[in-house]
Amino acid sequence: MNYETLFSRGADTMRQSPIRQMGTVAAQRADLISFAPGYPGADAFAWDDYRAIADDLLRGRGADVLQYGPTHGFRPLVDVLIEILKKRGISASHETTLVTTGSQQGLDLVSRTLLDPGDVVLLELPSYTGAIAAFRNTRAVLVGVKQQADGIDLDDLQDVLQRVRQEGRRVKFLYVTPNFQNPSGSLLSLEKRLRLLEWAGREGVPIVEDDPYGDLYFEDAATAAETRPIKADDRDDSVIYLTSFSKTLAPAFRTAWVAAPASVVAKFDVAKQAIDLCTGNFDQHVVYEACVRGVLARRIPELRRYYQHKRTVMEGALRRELAGLVTWPMPRGGFFLWAALPQEMDSQVLLQRAMHHGVIFVAGGAFFVDGSGRYFIRLSFSQQTPERIEDGCVRLAAAIKEEHAALQPGTARTA
Amino acid sequence: MNYETLFSRGADTMRQSPIRQMGTVAAQRADLISFAPGYPGADAFAWDDYRAIADDLLRGRGADVLQYGPTHGFRPLVDVLIEILKKRGISASHETTLVTTGSQQGLDLVSRTLLDPGDVVLLELPSYTGAIAAFRNTRAVLVGVKQQADGIDLDDLQDVLQRVRQEGRRVKFLYVTPNFQNPSGSLLSLEKRLRLLEWAGREGVPIVEDDPYGDLYFEDAATAAETRPIKADDRDDSVIYLTSFSKTLAPAFRTAWVAAPASVVAKFDVAKQAIDLCTGNFDQHVVYEACVRGVLARRIPELRRYYQHKRTVMEGALRRELAGLVTWPMPRGGFFLWAALPQEMDSQVLLQRAMHHGVIFVAGGAFFVDGSGRYFIRLSFSQQTPERIEDGCVRLAAAIKEEHAALQPGTARTA
Repeated sequence: MNYETLFSRGADTMRQSPIRQMGTVAAQRADLISFAPGYPGADAFAWDDYRAIADDLLRGRGADVLQYGPTHGFRPLVDVLIEILKKRGISASHETTLVTTGSQQGLDLVSRTLLDPGDVVLLELPSYTGAIAAFRNTRAVLVGVKQQADGIDLDDLQDVLQRVRQEGRRVKFLYVTPNFQNPSGSLLSLEKRLRLLEWAGREGVPIVEDDPYGDLYFEDAATAAETRPIKADDRDDSVIYLTSFSKTLAPAFRTAWVAAPASVVAKFDVAKQAIDLCTGNFDQHVVYEACVRGVLARRIPELRRYYQHKRTVMEGALRRELAGLVTWPMPRGGFFLWAALPQEMDSQVLLQRAMHHGVIFVAGGAFFVDGSGRYFIRLSFSQQTPERIEDGCVRLAAAIKEEHAALQPGTARTA
Repeated sequence: MNYETLFSRGADTMRQSPIRQMGTVAAQRADLISFAPGYPGADAFAWDDYRAIADDLLRGRGADVLQYGPTHGFRPLVDVLIEILKKRGISASHETTLVTTGSQQGLDLVSRTLLDPGDVVLLELPSYTGAIAAFRNTRAVLVGVKQQADGIDLDDLQDVLQRVRQEGRRVKFLYVTPNFQNPSGSLLSLEKRLRLLEWAGREGVPIVEDDPYGDLYFEDAATAAETRPIKADDRDDSVIYLTSFSKTLAPAFRTAWVAAPASVVAKFDVAKQAIDLCTGNFDQHVVYEACVRGVLARRIPELRRYYQHKRTVMEGALRRELAGLVTWPMPRGGFFLWAALPQEMDSQVLLQRAMHHGVIFVAGGAFFVDGSGRYFIRLSFSQQTPERIEDGCVRLAAAIKEEHAALQPGTARTA
């Protein structure tokens, strides 16, 4: 049987995730220090709390703990999600809140219910690769919008919108990650958030707001007020808001959620029935218990300090090892440091050299839908211990200096 | 913002699952006896084993237990899956085996990687509604093939294929559930399995074989040999095989898997990256431990007896209460009894009446892609206790007798 002639046109456009690919590389070499995946630090998980919770849940034998559950989500958990949204300034209800199997499923639901082949999605340059893949898989056309230090460039946004419309194409939504963006770490200014909302209402283009990192601002550089979701000020149902417990509790539980207009949530619910029936019920019960027992509330301030410290260690090491060669905006929250390489240094070429030195990262090009970005690299400081971050930065510096020397005029390229 | 004008064409074709809908009805009335969902009996879950496993996993703090995992699946679990496949006669490897988030995700992966709008899928009349929804959501055309007592009608299959091809349409695959089909409970004969394989090779049409119930044959009516997967004799890569732990361990763990040609698994892997990144890692670890500690092997023979007994109770009650009015083929395994109603009795009308009597089921029409099937009902005996099965059948019988009386000539309809 020859499947190449049977695959769908969507399947033909699907591409391997560059982050997942790096994961495969890392799994094959135990001595490698990986700054590639946006994984939380496993030593910060609330292991003992989850153990106590699992013990109680399985001893209690509440029939639905191990059963299929409603597609919409475990109802007491949805109540908790509504409370969390409220604390972020977002007013929600059962009709506007839906549990998803990780935020990746939220992106997939957006893609499948809103996009037809040829529809246009606007995204920041750079943007999260998982979103790019989810939108590309329905054969949408992805068009990039420039970023500035305080987030998306609103003039460019308007220019791009006009241009796309003049080409006769339909813009279905704008995708943004206002808080500590993956990969750039940037924080969208409050003023721009409000202006984006106005724009969305005026132009009739919904905003898909992805917010996995909002809780993880660093107290030496940002405040809770600065992370206020766009959705909090959404009076016209313009925003589909995605958020998750993967970065605060644990990714293994695959529990995330969406706050969106009721008509959108209803559509997501029906789509999800045929996608995975329901998010894991045991996982949802564990997450629910972690919320009502105060595990989440206790952990978040600890996690801010935990990741801030790792960020500080990485910045210190990079400054010491690579001052003048590499630049970056200080991460004010989240998991990522977004570094600009020296002029003419290609991140893919550097990656090969870095692997020889026992360190990996994600080359920047993957985050740009316009083919640019090859002079950037994404360094994730979230997973490695401070000692490994130090060590990894030394290795990275050696690779960059080597590549820098190789790029000097008169020097033969050896990479 | 008006989303009705923004939804995709795929979203426009999505329909609420009739089974999930019944779940919502059941959740609203505690006194209702539901024969609607194909849920396993929660009292048969290995609660204590899972509690011990969870305790060990969380105490051990193995870094990847709560972390993101590879899209392909937790590798030691994949080794176990390959062993299970081997016992079913299927030869598999890491390249041909992939973990999915429930079998529903397997159906979704099939749909997304193989179907373009307008492509044709052949399915049995009746077929599983979750498969129908997954295939319909990519705007494929679903064409039904008749069933006989020993499974799919091979003459009708050939006729349908010719007709569809003459209409200039492309058949992408045939979907079948050979073992104790949902909803009809039928078991495909071994001879027909081999003839289907020949057909697939000859016509170049792959078979998607869905096998969630194969382990659960009833020893008073079927043998392990009779459940041999079509995939076991697949020499030409003609079969994409889906199976799951939801019916044997627990649905909450959302752990299922696919055995398929390497090129198909590679495509599924890339698609899954953008769908949910990975199946829950904690769930996969629990399932892995349940396999290597012998929980699964111990449970399966017990479950055969457990569900056989429930089947016997339901058959006894129906025979006693409804002899002559309702007929059905004896379920030889699985979760479902597929009953034919008296002539002219519409299952949707009966459902309304049954709700008044405090019992629900799934009306047959939902399982037929050709709009037929209204005179059938699917009764799931898997979830309710024997006492509730008795009670539910008494209620059902009252509703059927009432509706039967209402249908007699000269009697005014009251439904």
